[in-house]
Amino acid sequence: MLAAARTVFAEKGFDAASIRAIATAAGVDPALVHHYFGNKDKLFLAVVDAPADPAELLPKVLASPRDQLGAAVVGMVLHVWDGPGRPAALALVRSAVSNEWTAKLLREFLVAKILRKVVSTLGFDPDVRAARASLVASQIIGLVMARYVLRLEPLASATPDEVVAAVGPTLQRYLTGDVALPGLP
Amino acid sequence: MLAAARTVFAEKGFDAASIRAIATAAGVDPALVHHYFGNKDKLFLAVVDAPADPAELLPKVLASPRDQLGAAVVGMVLHVWDGPGRPAALALVRSAVSNEWTAKLLREFLVAKILRKVVSTLGFDPDVRAARASLVASQIIGLVMARYVLRLEPLASATPDEVVAAVGPTLQRYLTGDVALPGLP
Repeated sequence: MLAAARTVFAEKGFDAASIRAIATAAGVDPALVHHYFGNKDKLFLAVVDAPADPAELLPKVLASPRDQLGAAVVGMVLHVWDGPGRPAALALVRSAVSNEWTAKLLREFLVAKILRKVVSTLGFDPDVRAARASLVASQIIGLVMARYVLRLEPLASATPDEVVAAVGPTLQRYLTGDVALPGLP
Repeated sequence: MLAAARTVFAEKGFDAASIRAIATAAGVDPALVHHYFGNKDKLFLAVVDAPADPAELLPKVLASPRDQLGAAVVGMVLHVWDGPGRPAALALVRSAVSNEWTAKLLREFLVAKILRKVVSTLGFDPDVRAARASLVASQIIGLVMARYVLRLEPLASATPDEVVAAVGPTLQRYLTGDVALPGLP
C-alpha cells in the first residue's frame, strides 16, 4: 500500500491523488487504506516518513502577526531540525537529492502541506502565491543544507534565535515584501 | 593521488592542506603531484570534480560595483548551473548530501574557493566575513536545490534574469546589508 501510495502521490501530486486511486494501484479495497492510515493526510505523512506533522506545527505559525510570519516559519523549521525529527528530516532530504521520486514527494510535502497553507493566508492571487512559496522554499532548503548537512560555520552552531534574526527577514520579504516575482509580469 | 588528496583536503581544509602532505599520504614524490596537477588549486578542482573553475568566473563578479555584488553572485551560479557544468554540479551536490567527506569538500569549495574571495573584498572583520559567507551560502545552495534538484515552479522555469531580480537582493543584504549576524554580538 505504501509503495502504491508513493507512486500515485509522486505522479499526481498530493491534491490530485485519491485514496481510491491508491487502493486500485495497490489492488486493495479503499476501506482497507482508510483502516490502516486514517485519511489521505496521514497516508501522505507515512509515505514521506515525515519528520513532523505540519497539522500540529502550522496553527502556531498561522496565528503569527503578518509581519512576523517569516520569523515564525524559520522558527518552525528549526524546531523540527533541532529536535528529535532531525534524523527523519535528514533522511528525507538525502533521499530527495538522490532519487527523483522522493524529490517529487518532498516538493509536494513542502509546497502542498506547508508553504501553500502559509501563503494562502496572505490574500494574494494563485500565481503570486506559487512564486512567493517557491522563493520561501529556496531559503528554507538552503538553510537546512547549510546548517545541518554541510555544517557551515557560524550558521551550524548559531542559536535558533540568531538564525531567526538573520534569515527571518529574508522569508518575510519573500512572503509579504516587495519582490520581483519569477514568472510574473 | 586523488584519493589521498580527497582525504587530506576533507580533513584539513583547503588552506591547511599542502601538496607535500598529500604526496606523503599517497606515497609519492611531491614533484609527481605537481607534474600531474600543476598546483594545489587545480588539484583541489580535480578532487571535487568541480563544475567550473572559480578562477575563471570570479574576476567578473569581483569587478562588479559593491551594490550589485548580490546580483553578480546569483548570475555566476546560474551561469554554471544553466550551462554545461550542470551534470558535474548536480553530482557534487548529490554526493555531498549522502557522504560526509564530500560534504566537507563541497563546503571547502564553496567557502574557500568562492565565497571567502567575494566577501574579502568588502572590508569586514574575519568573523563578520564568515557569518555573511555562511548566509550567502544558505541562499545559494537553496536556490540550486529548489530550481535544479526539486524543480519547484515557477522558480525552476524562471529566466536567469528573473531569478537574479528575485534572489539578488537577498544576497546583497547578506553581503553588505544590515543583518543580525549569527555568532556575533
